[in-house]
Amino acid sequence: MARVGIVGGTGYTGVELLRLLASHPQAEVVAITSRAESGRRVDDLFPNLRGLYNLCFTEPNVKELAACDVVFFATPHNVAMNLVPELLQAGARVVDLSADYRIRDAQLWSEWYGEPHASPDLLAQAVYGLPELNRAQIAQASLVACPGCYPTAVQLGLLPLLQTNLIDRKGIIANAASGASGAGRQAKIDTLLAETAGSFKAYGVAGHRHLPEIEQSLGDIAGSPVEVTFVPHLLPMVRGIHATLYGRLTGDAGDLQALFENTYADEPFVDVLPAGHCPQTRTVKGANRCQLAVAQPQGRDTVVVMSVIDNLVKGASGQAIQNMNIMLGMPEDAGLQQVGLLP
Amino acid sequence: MARVGIVGGTGYTGVELLRLLASHPQAEVVAITSRAESGRRVDDLFPNLRGLYNLCFTEPNVKELAACDVVFFATPHNVAMNLVPELLQAGARVVDLSADYRIRDAQLWSEWYGEPHASPDLLAQAVYGLPELNRAQIAQASLVACPGCYPTAVQLGLLPLLQTNLIDRKGIIANAASGASGAGRQAKIDTLLAETAGSFKAYGVAGHRHLPEIEQSLGDIAGSPVEVTFVPHLLPMVRGIHATLYGRLTGDAGDLQALFENTYADEPFVDVLPAGHCPQTRTVKGANRCQLAVAQPQGRDTVVVMSVIDNLVKGASGQAIQNMNIMLGMPEDAGLQQVGLLP
Amino acid sequence: MARVGIVGGTGYTGVELLRLLASHPQAEVVAITSRAESGRRVDDLFPNLRGLYNLCFTEPNVKELAACDVVFFATPHNVAMNLVPELLQAGARVVDLSADYRIRDAQLWSEWYGEPHASPDLLAQAVYGLPELNRAQIAQASLVACPGCYPTAVQLGLLPLLQTNLIDRKGIIANAASGASGAGRQAKIDTLLAETAGSFKAYGVAGHRHLPEIEQSLGDIAGSPVEVTFVPHLLPMVRGIHATLYGRLTGDAGDLQALFENTYADEPFVDVLPAGHCPQTRTVKGANRCQLAVAQPQGRDTVVVMSVIDNLVKGASGQAIQNMNIMLGMPEDAGLQQVGLLP
Amino acid sequence: MARVGIVGGTGYTGVELLRLLASHPQAEVVAITSRAESGRRVDDLFPNLRGLYNLCFTEPNVKELAACDVVFFATPHNVAMNLVPELLQAGARVVDLSADYRIRDAQLWSEWYGEPHASPDLLAQAVYGLPELNRAQIAQASLVACPGCYPTAVQLGLLPLLQTNLIDRKGIIANAASGASGAGRQAKIDTLLAETAGSFKAYGVAGHRHLPEIEQSLGDIAGSPVEVTFVPHLLPMVRGIHATLYGRLTGDAGDLQALFENTYADEPFVDVLPAGHCPQTRTVKGANRCQLAVAQPQGRDTVVVMSVIDNLVKGASGQAIQNMNIMLGMPEDAGLQQVGLLP
Repeated sequence: MARVGIVGGTGYTGVELLRLLASHPQAEVVAITSRAESGRRVDDLFPNLRGLYNLCFTEPNVKELAACDVVFFATPHNVAMNLVPELLQAGARVVDLSADYRIRDAQLWSEWYGEPHASPDLLAQAVYGLPELNRAQIAQASLVACPGCYPTAVQLGLLPLLQTNLIDRKGIIANAASGASGAGRQAKIDTLLAETAGSFKAYGVAGHRHLPEIEQSLGDIAGSPVEVTFVPHLLPMVRGIHATLYGRLTGDAGDLQALFENTYADEPFVDVLPAGHCPQTRTVKGANRCQLAVAQPQGRDTVVVMSVIDNLVKGASGQAIQNMNIMLGMPEDAGLQQVGLLP
Repeated sequence: MARVGIVGGTGYTGVELLRLLASHPQAEVVAITSRAESGRRVDDLFPNLRGLYNLCFTEPNVKELAACDVVFFATPHNVAMNLVPELLQAGARVVDLSADYRIRDAQLWSEWYGEPHASPDLLAQAVYGLPELNRAQIAQASLVACPGCYPTAVQLGLLPLLQTNLIDRKGIIANAASGASGAGRQAKIDTLLAETAGSFKAYGVAGHRHLPEIEQSLGDIAGSPVEVTFVPHLLPMVRGIHATLYGRLTGDAGDLQALFENTYADEPFVDVLPAGHCPQTRTVKGANRCQLAVAQPQGRDTVVVMSVIDNLVKGASGQAIQNMNIMLGMPEDAGLQQVGLLP
Repeated sequence: MARVGIVGGTGYTGVELLRLLASHPQAEVVAITSRAESGRRVDDLFPNLRGLYNLCFTEPNVKELAACDVVFFATPHNVAMNLVPELLQAGARVVDLSADYRIRDAQLWSEWYGEPHASPDLLAQAVYGLPELNRAQIAQASLVACPGCYPTAVQLGLLPLLQTNLIDRKGIIANAASGASGAGRQAKIDTLLAETAGSFKAYGVAGHRHLPEIEQSLGDIAGSPVEVTFVPHLLPMVRGIHATLYGRLTGDAGDLQALFENTYADEPFVDVLPAGHCPQTRTVKGANRCQLAVAQPQGRDTVVVMSVIDNLVKGASGQAIQNMNIMLGMPEDAGLQQVGLLP
Repeated sequence: MARVGIVGGTGYTGVELLRLLASHPQAEVVAITSRAESGRRVDDLFPNLRGLYNLCFTEPNVKELAACDVVFFATPHNVAMNLVPELLQAGARVVDLSADYRIRDAQLWSEWYGEPHASPDLLAQAVYGLPELNRAQIAQASLVACPGCYPTAVQLGLLPLLQTNLIDRKGIIANAASGASGAGRQAKIDTLLAETAGSFKAYGVAGHRHLPEIEQSLGDIAGSPVEVTFVPHLLPMVRGIHATLYGRLTGDAGDLQALFENTYADEPFVDVLPAGHCPQTRTVKGANRCQLAVAQPQGRDTVVVMSVIDNLVKGASGQAIQNMNIMLGMPEDAGLQQVGLLP
């Protein structure tokens, strides 16, 4: 039984880790921290967990956390990068759900996050935790940087096209939309129900923090720099990300459906829909799954990929557990067999 | 042209006053205050108003406000009771949308609001602004306390039954539900979309601040004290209040449909639906209207009334303008002819 | 491994049975019928099930169904009562999720459903499948009538009060609200998103088909007839039922919180919240669980109970599986350990 | 007072025409037809209209309709093209909200709509009713084909760029999303609340009927053929269209903000937001308005335009009335001064 610690357990990725780990056969949460809620029972804050955990939030304590087999950071950025060095030194493995170790270039990180990086030495050591891309390195890693929610959906959608050089590396369009849980469990006017229900808008058009992450990883896949126009939108719903991706074919497309199916044939959590189908966010709600479809409208030279995930599962906490499973040599799908909640 | 001032214009009742007054033929907003947004254009914060107002938020200034014909307080409680005395002395008329002057008994007010009342002398002078009840007094008033949203829906539903002594004054049930805009435009976790969409709950069961207001006014109608069990619920939607009201008949009900239709025959903003129909909140969305239905299921001795309003219109800003129209001798429906937005 | 058949698998209770049974360790779905979708893969209609079932819908075939250990009817009323006699004779056990066997009195059934009952002889034999009430009989039953969604929420909320004679048997109010999935997966204008989103209404006030079921079962609990005013409402959301129940105390209430906690102390799927909490439908979303709270506002003689379930799980398919587990001597929670999806 | 007839008044564009015309100072609805609801009061079907109309639905009658000054067709396609010839001959003016006269090429129309066109002779005479493009011709027209909802949002967003030859005519991306009212008031499983709430998906990727309309009109604007990849999506909300448009700059962009502001400086119903703002569908809810924003992320060669309308107002019934006003020489904004409903 792996001993699991969670830093920052009062947000949506925290409660989602607890929901998923409740049915994990080989892992047990032994510590969950929160300065603000220290002393409060976890199931008092999150009554869906009643009967499953006999845990209270505690003040973060490095000694206790270091005694865990794996520590998840379910915090905003700027927390992990201060605590991780000590934890690694103490021998713990870390899966960071925040943005602190996603970008390899410390200066680029600083430009987008507005402050110096606190542990830039670890950036080279951190493995980018997209199992479909880096499974072997994850298995050896002590520090995994979980991809952002948008980047997960975008990368899984574009990977088959970029690996095969089928599309132009410039002029890629990533038009994506997220449910409001992506904005976190924080008191903000902008994500009140009364501000967002029954409405839809783009945001962050001038530059969203997931853009450098997307371009870094797609560049790795393509083998040379890519340029993406990334426009996120806010959906009037709780969970789910839908990315609609557009690329310009540089030559004959060949059989796109077969390309996608073959690329992901052995992937347990990526599912290519039959030709002609469009994925819906609800079919992956609560599940650690990405569903994909590819189309070439009117046979023209623009290829369209649709990619859906649950932002809190394959886009965050589920993928974090998938990474843990790989790191600890457990079955990759342990604790991750939830079925999408339809309707 | 009446000169209108609005204190506290950045909340939902503020923007709704502006939306409605934009089409008022005899009133013009000349000042709108907000300490937090002072200097910002009104239509920068609320882009639905672009092209309609050339106004900026300003710091509250008693002299400027006193120069208005009428001043609306679209503030949380505890603001109006400090400013109103000065404004009245300066000769302004005041329509207070907050709770400060709704309860006649200063001590009762203090118990529910947790602080002493700042201008208890004015409580006797304030007229409770439910036109269907107090039209004549409103016409003479210089200070009108606009009813709360729940109390408006509940009172209009129960008035015909209590006026005629048809139901027991004890054991009345007011089961009500409100859209999330009722919680105001404030940064709170509890009313985030991710906390409320796709879910439903009761709240304030032990005691909601609208309870003493409801019991005071229903007691006035009945001519003796009433006891109401009031359970509010939070709906996963933006606008609308639905009250389902239950009373125990003390004798033969007679023709309830006729009773309701006759009671409201001359009321421009209360609409009794044909027998057998159930009102929907959407049919009054955006409109200054209460729609009612009455039923006596299985012919038993429990009468059921359904009452719907838009909490921001007949439950707040629309009713405030209705009061202003009466106070200033204008047509009661001036600026209040919006039609419910269906679908 | 129990062999399971499902009649009428294209509705919401059908897909929910499939979702839940996918993780049942001792049961396997071997047949699922639908005349309309015969020949179509189950996961083509419901893509959340991709990878879990290698099944197609088939025409209903009594021989095949009779070879199952248990057959679920996930059909509208008026299907089961025609097929069940033959299945029972062939030795199958049946769990009927429809209304056909819920009401013991065939004539009463006919009045509410508008047609004669096709197998009235079986009504006496059918066990009403609320495990918290009838666990022992269910274990012996060959035909179980699963309770309706509203009746489940209402009965679990009122049971402690009626068993102890604490409230008046007349004048009970059951004010309930359901998500739109309760209306089924049928093409109807009334439950289009454009008709229901952002709105709220009561319906069926004059008489809803769940009323006789509620009164029958509450009468059994109380030991004498009860009268309930039942007003259902339609919520602008997919899943969840919330019942707000009001009873008049006939004497001293005693410790209501202790009463509820004691009543359900050993029930695996009924959870009494701590005093002062209000249940939310989202904390039981996707889970086979009822969460309850009880209050006595202002210490007056009206007791208020709040009861939430997921209408498709504890209100239908989850409860059906719970019944199957009891009938087949399996652990009662087999396949029913999903955690509520919050947020 | 213009006499107005409406053919097919039971859908969402029908009730929206009625809502808007209720406040039109120079027009009066004298006939509204529906075969299915013939004899039923309009406000019985649509209770938001109670007190505003004393009208019943009637069987369509050419003589009565021909006596109107203007006849709106708020019907599915394939109705207007059979009735319009007779009405024009009788001297009536027609504004068709359906697709029947939007595409000039009868054969192209047939390919997309799957049947021959019933009055192809009129196609040359019909004026495409986008006032921002064809105001002068509309003023002279007797038959106006109202643009589709998606095409309205897409054209207003791309017009400034195509008129000035700033973007490549190939490879334009129109990624658009619509509320569910766009699917009409028809009994369909796909647009049930339980199928669509809390979810998001693309649809019609292989080819949507609005594509040929979009390409025809953008080609007119550009002066030569354009190629658009058009991917519509279904939003879990009632009203609103958001189009996110991407074009490849062919040279220096210049001052895009000034270009957009200048293009629409005199347009009463097109509003270019200040630089840096993103439009929201809610700020135009219920209003006959298009709000636009333009951006050039990272200064690269992809320009992004965001365009929002209410699909039932500027995307249908509001635009139809705007056309009527122009045809009849009335003020263009008569009856169209509703303010967006925020929140």
